[in-house]
Amino acid sequence: MLFSQLINELKKGDAGLVDYEISNDPDVSVAASLEKVITNQISFLDKDSPLNLRNCIKSTQASILLLPSNDLEIIEIARNSNFAWASLKEPKIGFAETLNILYPPDLVVEGIHKTAVIANGVQIGFGVSIGPNVYIGNNSQIGNETIIHAGVVIYQKVKIGNKNVIHANSVIHSETVLKDECVINSNAVIGSEGFGFVSTPKGWKKMPQIGHVILENKVEIGSCTTVDRPSVGQTVIGEDTKIDNLVQIGHGASIGKGCAMAAQVGLAGGVEIGNSVILAGQVGVTNKVKVGDGVIASSKCGIHTDIEPGNVVSGFPAISNKLWLRCSATFKKLPDLVKAIRELERKSSR
Amino acid sequence: MLFSQLINELKKGDAGLVDYEISNDPDVSVAASLEKVITNQISFLDKDSPLNLRNCIKSTQASILLLPSNDLEIIEIARNSNFAWASLKEPKIGFAETLNILYPPDLVVEGIHKTAVIANGVQIGFGVSIGPNVYIGNNSQIGNETIIHAGVVIYQKVKIGNKNVIHANSVIHSETVLKDECVINSNAVIGSEGFGFVSTPKGWKKMPQIGHVILENKVEIGSCTTVDRPSVGQTVIGEDTKIDNLVQIGHGASIGKGCAMAAQVGLAGGVEIGNSVILAGQVGVTNKVKVGDGVIASSKCGIHTDIEPGNVVSGFPAISNKLWLRCSATFKKLPDLVKAIRELERKSSR
Amino acid sequence: MLFSQLINELKKGDAGLVDYEISNDPDVSVAASLEKVITNQISFLDKDSPLNLRNCIKSTQASILLLPSNDLEIIEIARNSNFAWASLKEPKIGFAETLNILYPPDLVVEGIHKTAVIANGVQIGFGVSIGPNVYIGNNSQIGNETIIHAGVVIYQKVKIGNKNVIHANSVIHSETVLKDECVINSNAVIGSEGFGFVSTPKGWKKMPQIGHVILENKVEIGSCTTVDRPSVGQTVIGEDTKIDNLVQIGHGASIGKGCAMAAQVGLAGGVEIGNSVILAGQVGVTNKVKVGDGVIASSKCGIHTDIEPGNVVSGFPAISNKLWLRCSATFKKLPDLVKAIRELERKSSR
Repeated sequence: MLFSQLINELKKGDAGLVDYEISNDPDVSVAASLEKVITNQISFLDKDSPLNLRNCIKSTQASILLLPSNDLEIIEIARNSNFAWASLKEPKIGFAETLNILYPPDLVVEGIHKTAVIANGVQIGFGVSIGPNVYIGNNSQIGNETIIHAGVVIYQKVKIGNKNVIHANSVIHSETVLKDECVINSNAVIGSEGFGFVSTPKGWKKMPQIGHVILENKVEIGSCTTVDRPSVGQTVIGEDTKIDNLVQIGHGASIGKGCAMAAQVGLAGGVEIGNSVILAGQVGVTNKVKVGDGVIASSKCGIHTDIEPGNVVSGFPAISNKLWLRCSATFKKLPDLVKAIRELERKSSR
Repeated sequence: MLFSQLINELKKGDAGLVDYEISNDPDVSVAASLEKVITNQISFLDKDSPLNLRNCIKSTQASILLLPSNDLEIIEIARNSNFAWASLKEPKIGFAETLNILYPPDLVVEGIHKTAVIANGVQIGFGVSIGPNVYIGNNSQIGNETIIHAGVVIYQKVKIGNKNVIHANSVIHSETVLKDECVINSNAVIGSEGFGFVSTPKGWKKMPQIGHVILENKVEIGSCTTVDRPSVGQTVIGEDTKIDNLVQIGHGASIGKGCAMAAQVGLAGGVEIGNSVILAGQVGVTNKVKVGDGVIASSKCGIHTDIEPGNVVSGFPAISNKLWLRCSATFKKLPDLVKAIRELERKSSR
Repeated sequence: MLFSQLINELKKGDAGLVDYEISNDPDVSVAASLEKVITNQISFLDKDSPLNLRNCIKSTQASILLLPSNDLEIIEIARNSNFAWASLKEPKIGFAETLNILYPPDLVVEGIHKTAVIANGVQIGFGVSIGPNVYIGNNSQIGNETIIHAGVVIYQKVKIGNKNVIHANSVIHSETVLKDECVINSNAVIGSEGFGFVSTPKGWKKMPQIGHVILENKVEIGSCTTVDRPSVGQTVIGEDTKIDNLVQIGHGASIGKGCAMAAQVGLAGGVEIGNSVILAGQVGVTNKVKVGDGVIASSKCGIHTDIEPGNVVSGFPAISNKLWLRCSATFKKLPDLVKAIRELERKSSR
C-alpha cells in the first residue's frame, strides 16, 4: 500500500492525524516493531515511550513511521530524516488501523461443513460459518455472520448472537448467552458447572448448578479460560470486557463493562467487579468480594476484602499500591532491622 | 411443583426437616438466590448467614423459603409472614435437593453417535451414551450408564467404570482408570505425561512417563484441569475428592479422600495430600511435600514443607493462619516501624 | 528382559556404566520407584538421594537396582546383597534408558484416518499419522513421521516439521512454525492472538495480532498451555526448552534454549528469557522484563525487573534467594519485633 493511501485511511480513523510528510510515497506491505523494522516496512512510536525506543528513531531503516504529535523532539528528528512519517495524537491506534488494512482477516468460507453435526431445532442465521467436526446441541441459536471454527462443541439451548467468533475446540455449555461481536478463543470453556459442594456427614453433596452465563456485546475470552455457571441466577460479563488466557471466572461472578483481566487471574464465586477494572496477571479475588469501578490491581495481588472505586492496589493481602511499594522495599531490609533492634536492646540493657 | 409435594421429598432427604407452614401451598418452578428471589419462586437462608442476607427475610417476595431450624429469630419472622416455609437442620442441603427436583438433568440419548469413532477391542457397557466426534482408542473399556459428550478423546487401554460423565473435548490418556460416578469437565486432560526431564551435557533427556492415573469413585475434575501420569507407579485421586478448574496435579501425586481444591491450585510431582484437605484458590504445593489430613490452606498459600494434620495455614512460605494474619497486619506498618527504630537510634546516640 | 541384555544396552547409552553384578541374571519387565519396588522389578537410586531413599536399599525386594557409582557405602551394601545391580555415573539417565527399553512407545498406525478433514493445498510428508476428527487448514505443511492425534485442529499456513507429536484436541493457529521433534500435549493452544487492546474513548480497540509463533527443535509444550502470537514479529521458544502444563506465554515473548518452566508459570508480553533458565511453578514475569542466562526462580516468584544472568531469585518482588530466605524467616517474627520496639520505646521515654 502506498503511504498516500494509508494517510487517506488514517484521516477517516480514530488516531487523530496531525501532520505528515509523504517523502517519496513509499509502498509498504509489512509492519514491524520499532526495534526490528527495516526498509520497506512501517512501524510506530507510542506516546511516552522509554528512551531506548525513542533513540531508535535516530537510526531507523523504516520507510514509514507513525509518530506521537506531542513529541516535538521526535517530530524534529523526523523532519530531518529520509523516512516518510505521520504524526498522530494516538499513534498506537493509528498502528492498529494500519495493521487492519495491511493484514485483512482471512476470508472464512461461509456455510456449514459437511462433517459438522447439527442437532434438532437449531436456528442458524445468514452468513454463518460452521467448521469441520463442530457439534451444536438441540434448540441452540446461532446469529448472523457468526464464525464457529473446527471442533467447537455447543451444548443445547445456547443463544449466540451476531458476528461472534468462536475458535477451535472451545466448549459452550447449555443455556449460555453470547450477545454480539464476542470472541471466544481456542479451548475456552463457557458455562461449565460451578464448583459448589456442601459438606455432609456422608461426604460432599453437589449443589446443582442450573444458572447460566451471559456474555454481553464485545466480550473477549482467552484460550483455556473457564467461565462457570452458578447454582441459580447468572454469571455475567459486561460489554467490552476483555479476558486473557487461563483465567478462572467463578460461578455467579458479576463483571462490569470495559474491564481487562490478564492471564491466570482467578475470580472466586460471587465476586462483583465494577466497570473499567484492570486486573494484572495472576491476581486472585476471594469469593463474594466487591471491587469498585476503575480499580487497578497489580500482578499477583490477592484481594480478600472489598476495594473502593478508583483504588490502585498491590500485594497479598491487597493494600494501596503506594504503601505496598514502600513495605516491599522495607521487607528486603528485615534482617538489618532485626540487627538494629538487637543493637538497641544491648545498649538499653547496659 | 406444589410446596406440599416438595415437603414430601424433603422428608425423604438428608436436610433434616423440622417444621413447615404450607400457607396457600404455592406452586413454584423457579429457584433463585435470596437477594433476587421474587413471587412464585423458592429460595433459602443458610445457617450462620451474614446480617445482610438475614435481613432479606423481612421484605422478601419469595413464595417459599427454606430456613435454618436453629435460627429462632428468623423462624419467628417466618411465622408472621405470608410466604410458605420449611425449617431444616441443613437448609443448604435442602436447597440442593430442591434444585435436583425442579431441574432434573437433561435426558441424554443413549447410544453411540454415528460420527463417534470406536477403535478395536473396545468394551462398552449398557446404557452408555457416546456423543458426536468422540474417539475411543484400542482396548479401552466404558462401564454402564457412562455419558461421554461430544469431541472427547480417549486413548487406548483406558478403564472407565459405571455412571461417569465426561464433558466435551476433554482428553483421557492411555491406561487411565476412572472408577464409578466421576465427573470430568470440559477440556480437562487426565493422564498426560508428567514433566520429567534429566539434565545432561547434551540437553534435557526425557524420563519416560509410563505410570498411569487412577481416579477413585466420585472424583470430580474441573474444566481445563490437568492430571499427569508419573514415570512409574500411579497418580491417585481418592474417593469423593473434588477438584476445580485450571488445577495442575503433578505426576505421582497422591491425594486422599474427600478433599476439595479450588481453581488454579498447583500440586508439584510426588506430593502426598491426606484426607479431607481443603486448598483454596491458587495454592501451590512443592514437590514431594506431605500435607496431613484435614489441613486447610488459604488462597495463594505456598506450601514448601510438610504440614501436620489439622493445621490451618496461610502465606508463602506457609505458616499458621493465625500467625500469618498478625504478620500480614504488621507488614503494612513496616515503614512506621523503620521510623520508630530510627527515632530510637537517634535518642540512644545522644 | 534379562539383566545381561539391559547391561549391553546401558553400555551403549549415556549413563556411564561403571560396574555391575549380574547375580542370577534376573528377567524383569516392570520398573518401579525405590519405595514400592518388589521382586522381579527394577528400580534405581539417584545420586545425592535423601536418607530415607538410601535406607530403602538395605531392605529392598528389588531384583535389579541401578546405583550411583560414587556412593561407596551403597555399593558396599549392594555387594553384600542378593539383588543384581549396576553402578552408573548417572543412574537416573540409566533408569530413563531402561524405561525406554521396557516400555517402547505404542506403535501408532501410519496414515490419515478417514474422518480427518484435510483442506486444500496441504502438504503431508511420509510416515505421517493423522488421527480421527483432525482438521488441517489450507496450505499447511506436515513433515515426515509427525504424529497428530485425534481431534487436533491446525489452522491454515502452519508449518510443522519432522517427528513432531501433537496430542489430542490441541489447537495450532495460522502461520505457526514447529521445527522438528517437538511435543505438544493435549488441549494446548499455540499461536492464539495476543492480549492487545488500546484504551480509547469509545472503549477497547483491538490491536491486530498478525505475528506468529516459532517453536524451535525439541520444544515440549504442556497440556492446556497457551502460547500467544504477537501483533508484529514473532513469539519464539528456543531449542530444547520444556514447558509444563497450564503455562501462559505472552505475545512476543522470546525464550532461549534449554529452559524449563513448571506448571502455571505466566510470562507477560514481550519478556526476554535467556538460555537454560529455570522457572518453578506459578512464577510470573512482568511484560518486557529480561531474565538472563541460567537464572533460577523459585516457585511463586514474581519478577518485575530485569534479572542478571546466573542469579537465583525468590519472592515477590523477586530478590536474591539467599536474602529472601532470611527475610521470610524474619517475617514470621514481625509481631515479636513490634513488641521489642514498643518495649524499647517504653524504656527510652522513661
